[in-house]
Amino acid sequence: MFALMPGEQKPVEVRELDLPELEPDSALLKVELSEVCGTDVHLRDSRLAGVPYPIIPGHVSVGVLDKIRGTMLDIEGRPFAEGDRVTFLDVHKTCHACWYCLVAKASTRCPRRKVYGITYGLEDGLTGGWSQHLYLKPGVRCIRMDGVASELYMAGGCSLPTALHAVERADIALGDTVLVLGSGPVGLSTIAFATLRGAARVLCIGAPPNRLTQATQTGADAVLDFTKHAAGERREWVLQQTHGRGADVTIECTGAPTAVADAMRFTRDAGRVVIVGQYTDHGETGINPHLDLNKKHLDVRGCWGSDYSHFHRAVEMLRVERVSKLWAGFRLTRYPLSKANEALSLVESGKVIKALIDPWL
Amino acid sequence: MFALMPGEQKPVEVRELDLPELEPDSALLKVELSEVCGTDVHLRDSRLAGVPYPIIPGHVSVGVLDKIRGTMLDIEGRPFAEGDRVTFLDVHKTCHACWYCLVAKASTRCPRRKVYGITYGLEDGLTGGWSQHLYLKPGVRCIRMDGVASELYMAGGCSLPTALHAVERADIALGDTVLVLGSGPVGLSTIAFATLRGAARVLCIGAPPNRLTQATQTGADAVLDFTKHAAGERREWVLQQTHGRGADVTIECTGAPTAVADAMRFTRDAGRVVIVGQYTDHGETGINPHLDLNKKHLDVRGCWGSDYSHFHRAVEMLRVERVSKLWAGFRLTRYPLSKANEALSLVESGKVIKALIDPWL
Amino acid sequence: MFALMPGEQKPVEVRELDLPELEPDSALLKVELSEVCGTDVHLRDSRLAGVPYPIIPGHVSVGVLDKIRGTMLDIEGRPFAEGDRVTFLDVHKTCHACWYCLVAKASTRCPRRKVYGITYGLEDGLTGGWSQHLYLKPGVRCIRMDGVASELYMAGGCSLPTALHAVERADIALGDTVLVLGSGPVGLSTIAFATLRGAARVLCIGAPPNRLTQATQTGADAVLDFTKHAAGERREWVLQQTHGRGADVTIECTGAPTAVADAMRFTRDAGRVVIVGQYTDHGETGINPHLDLNKKHLDVRGCWGSDYSHFHRAVEMLRVERVSKLWAGFRLTRYPLSKANEALSLVESGKVIKALIDPWL
Amino acid sequence: MFALMPGEQKPVEVRELDLPELEPDSALLKVELSEVCGTDVHLRDSRLAGVPYPIIPGHVSVGVLDKIRGTMLDIEGRPFAEGDRVTFLDVHKTCHACWYCLVAKASTRCPRRKVYGITYGLEDGLTGGWSQHLYLKPGVRCIRMDGVASELYMAGGCSLPTALHAVERADIALGDTVLVLGSGPVGLSTIAFATLRGAARVLCIGAPPNRLTQATQTGADAVLDFTKHAAGERREWVLQQTHGRGADVTIECTGAPTAVADAMRFTRDAGRVVIVGQYTDHGETGINPHLDLNKKHLDVRGCWGSDYSHFHRAVEMLRVERVSKLWAGFRLTRYPLSKANEALSLVESGKVIKALIDPWL
Repeated sequence: MFALMPGEQKPVEVRELDLPELEPDSALLKVELSEVCGTDVHLRDSRLAGVPYPIIPGHVSVGVLDKIRGTMLDIEGRPFAEGDRVTFLDVHKTCHACWYCLVAKASTRCPRRKVYGITYGLEDGLTGGWSQHLYLKPGVRCIRMDGVASELYMAGGCSLPTALHAVERADIALGDTVLVLGSGPVGLSTIAFATLRGAARVLCIGAPPNRLTQATQTGADAVLDFTKHAAGERREWVLQQTHGRGADVTIECTGAPTAVADAMRFTRDAGRVVIVGQYTDHGETGINPHLDLNKKHLDVRGCWGSDYSHFHRAVEMLRVERVSKLWAGFRLTRYPLSKANEALSLVESGKVIKALIDPWL
Repeated sequence: MFALMPGEQKPVEVRELDLPELEPDSALLKVELSEVCGTDVHLRDSRLAGVPYPIIPGHVSVGVLDKIRGTMLDIEGRPFAEGDRVTFLDVHKTCHACWYCLVAKASTRCPRRKVYGITYGLEDGLTGGWSQHLYLKPGVRCIRMDGVASELYMAGGCSLPTALHAVERADIALGDTVLVLGSGPVGLSTIAFATLRGAARVLCIGAPPNRLTQATQTGADAVLDFTKHAAGERREWVLQQTHGRGADVTIECTGAPTAVADAMRFTRDAGRVVIVGQYTDHGETGINPHLDLNKKHLDVRGCWGSDYSHFHRAVEMLRVERVSKLWAGFRLTRYPLSKANEALSLVESGKVIKALIDPWL
Repeated sequence: MFALMPGEQKPVEVRELDLPELEPDSALLKVELSEVCGTDVHLRDSRLAGVPYPIIPGHVSVGVLDKIRGTMLDIEGRPFAEGDRVTFLDVHKTCHACWYCLVAKASTRCPRRKVYGITYGLEDGLTGGWSQHLYLKPGVRCIRMDGVASELYMAGGCSLPTALHAVERADIALGDTVLVLGSGPVGLSTIAFATLRGAARVLCIGAPPNRLTQATQTGADAVLDFTKHAAGERREWVLQQTHGRGADVTIECTGAPTAVADAMRFTRDAGRVVIVGQYTDHGETGINPHLDLNKKHLDVRGCWGSDYSHFHRAVEMLRVERVSKLWAGFRLTRYPLSKANEALSLVESGKVIKALIDPWL
Repeated sequence: MFALMPGEQKPVEVRELDLPELEPDSALLKVELSEVCGTDVHLRDSRLAGVPYPIIPGHVSVGVLDKIRGTMLDIEGRPFAEGDRVTFLDVHKTCHACWYCLVAKASTRCPRRKVYGITYGLEDGLTGGWSQHLYLKPGVRCIRMDGVASELYMAGGCSLPTALHAVERADIALGDTVLVLGSGPVGLSTIAFATLRGAARVLCIGAPPNRLTQATQTGADAVLDFTKHAAGERREWVLQQTHGRGADVTIECTGAPTAVADAMRFTRDAGRVVIVGQYTDHGETGINPHLDLNKKHLDVRGCWGSDYSHFHRAVEMLRVERVSKLWAGFRLTRYPLSKANEALSLVESGKVIKALIDPWL
């Protein structure tokens, strides 16, 4: 049983399919939990390019290896066994043979990569986590979940590698003040990783109130509801918190184009801005190259996708108690496959902190 | 005798002033050559903030130490002697005591710095190079010009530290293709330093034809006249030169806000863009955060000002014959103080490659 | 009243001196607390070059501004007032005018710098913290201690900037395993900063047991007593903790030359090693360039001294409760000036975690 | 026809073998030129671990695709055709699936990689360039040689990716003085890439005289014969060339363990040392951790192996005339397979600049 997203803004439907024949060195995952993230909302609304509808959504998921044909190895070279609980890198087919992989060493821009739940579709098999079973094709990289509860991991879900990558790219220094724009799952995980990375203070501008409350619990030292303060007021607030200079580092996790200009203006001269919230095209925004970039001596860094290391490091971190507690309090809401449409609406509205799909409910 | 820029778009006038009393550990420079750069045009047009008109323009200059009171040391700790030919860091009073200097280590954003010919005015004394004599205040850092002809150095002039800084910040890798937007003095010096830094190919989009010819002579492998090709055509041209990907690194040296969006669009995914041409406020430009930043996984870096190291390294480089020859062919036009207004007009139009002020003509 | 170290392995003596005349823009600090660190033991034993005996030891200290003549500004440009509680950068006279300061941007190698309690001596005035009063010369950079208790700050003392600098230089990635060699004050602060920087696990090899207990309390996940295990066993222990590869990052804080070879051998291929424990010359050690460096593709980084940013960032961090608690449990032992010799012996033996000098006891 | 190295210090013999059956997506290379490098001397002397004797030496080679079965693509995704002239990454089977590949992103330390001519042996087929034909297994990455003459490329040979990697890792800044220890092929290519990277001056200490002459022709500004000057004199010479400070960057390309300590001592404080000459175990050397590392605030970086990018960037560079001329003057000596033993002796002695194997002579 799985949930099918037909595209063209049509609702998700629940379907059944025979379990697949396994190719050599592949496996069947019995899904425990998957999630509903902002990308799923974009997918429902056909806002992403290159999606082969119909698709089974759910890119980051966790489950148990139900059946293995041949051998699947972890990165230590140890074989997985049936019954092992795992997550997996949702990106498949990074080619390690193209210019982006081998010369630029920018594998998240490899043109051959396919993403479970996004650019793999039903034609490719059970390739999304909104399903009781998911097909782990040969070459998919699994990660053992020993020591990390499934629910805890899915509290972060796809925001874990995304936020970890963004924080990695942000060059936070010990003692910095980090501003996070956005308080959705990526914003919240970014707050957590920023404190883990050595920020002395983390500020968050987001909405709605329940998410800002969570932001505070996750480690934000001060929060502001952007729906109640115009851009100028928000800037004032940041300056007041930062000796009049702006944040050392700003990480944009909102999805709103204007937040990119805000990020630049809320950051101190010679600081860093990471743009990780612009995963779909919402149009242009205006910036002032003299004031916002050149005179500020600013670094602005786009951050696209994740690779194996981001998943691996996130799981390594979650094995540590002082780390996992940052996600342990996230309020999770579980939905059966049959309520996926409802879950999408609630994620869109920001009313839930984190919506999970439990295909066995 | 010196040239005074009154501000408020008024013409420059020639004046006389008694030579100053020297404070301890200061010196009087007999100016050999100064220059007319794009910033001087902005100054004439009152386009920069914080300029204490009237001023004596001319920030980067070369001359001979005419008179020294007390001791002035070079960075090796050796005293300068009267008769030494020197240039100097046009930036004075970097405080090494503020948050930007000591914590951010971003000394070009130190709020106390003063720049000869720009933020020092006539009230501060003979503080510009459009003058027969210039007052080197205590603490000004001079650089010996042994082995570097004055005219050769001034062929680059202020574009030397500016371009060197931009190239330093661009993280060019051996074998990269570098695109330079703009073919004024900063663009030309950027072409030169990009080849010296290890670029395999350098492309330049600029105008007018005489500057593009110079760009080719300086090391550009291919040039395009932007006045004859719309943005889409320019992008096509870049893609054709770069396996359809865009430049590895783009360095913007134009002054036009739209060139910033171009720079982002002409660069390959996961490449670097340096913005060094936006030294005055010409307004906003539109960018698409999804397409131009986030999905591209792009780095965009503003680059403001220069510090001592950029001057020092530029002079070190010019002592080497294989380096200096890149600037040796620049067509120089010398103007007396009395023709400074004419020189400003020609620089504005791009008709000259490099305009120098010779205060003794 | 102050403690004088005569050099030539002679004991420290308590002396009295009239309070100095203040130069313009200088101040008198009423010392609350200073410390006894490993460098003080080296000083007593005349093991450091360039020390102008007799000296007043005590480089990192905290106290209250007793008297200010003229103006002393913090890095925000705000004047200090008498009664302000402060610490200060023990390094004075970094010149910002030499090749190391201006070209290499390696100010900790500036040849003109003078260090309170080490390379300033009695001839320079009250220039050490083992004294009731200390003379803050013009240009000394003070830091406000608002929100940081003096005792908490001195629990780290000079190990704070030293360890923060070492961790900064170690390029720890989120999820890394960090090995700290040594469990003296620098080792302990390094453990703390490594966890704050994003290490998933921190290992420590040190001695004696009381310090290893503190290491565990400070955040080390596993500790080993080096006095009970030969180098081969220590290596085995590290490999067992790290999937057979070695630590991602090793930070050497021991003072023993052989620890440098150990650090290289206990680190995984393509990892980073920081050497921060070799503050005096204890002779040579053997390394195998093929096995320890080239084939390992290893980075080994010496780390010398501190600059203002390291002090500043340490204080910023300590203002945060989740940070300060890491140092809050350090067992501190306070000594009056008259027991400085005893304190030196105990520090040498490692029997105390942290020895403080309270000049008012 | 090919040359077989039996190991156990036995001489190389010429043999014949039937051409292999091609697996799908593999090819047969008709070798034009291969080379004799220092590693081949180590191989002859059984000084490397993990070599499956008997082997066919010759890791970096150039030739023409004689026969292709299936499809072989370049990194642009374009298929190779029979008749194309190519070189190839000598490293095969980098797994992109292990911890070193995916988490450390240190693919040159991937334990599964196999190197043509070194860790592939006769059992693996025609896997060395000292052969008329070489078997390009599925997954071998070839590079088109359009615009780069085979002889010019082989003038550098394996020293091209090795030196490019070392220079990449050296963080040379524009205007730096770079010291190269060693004047064998790797040393010479390092001199060339150091000048291409922006060094103002390159110094070389090596031997014998014919190689030092070549060093000068390749771009070294000053050379010293290490056989005629003791270590102390060599250090003096470097200090004289560098304002008494030492080189900004030293790249060790010698193979002698003591050169590693020299490299550290000949480099200025806070400089960088790259160790790339220690490809076999010649034993230990002594360093002084206090003087050579910690107090110097030095970075020492081992540099192992090459990946595709290093080959690719080297070929891109050689397509440029101002680059290729640096290698164009290398004196090449061609040997037939039957004189491989003689070639090995001459390479060992340093009497030849570069020895090539032409299997058709």
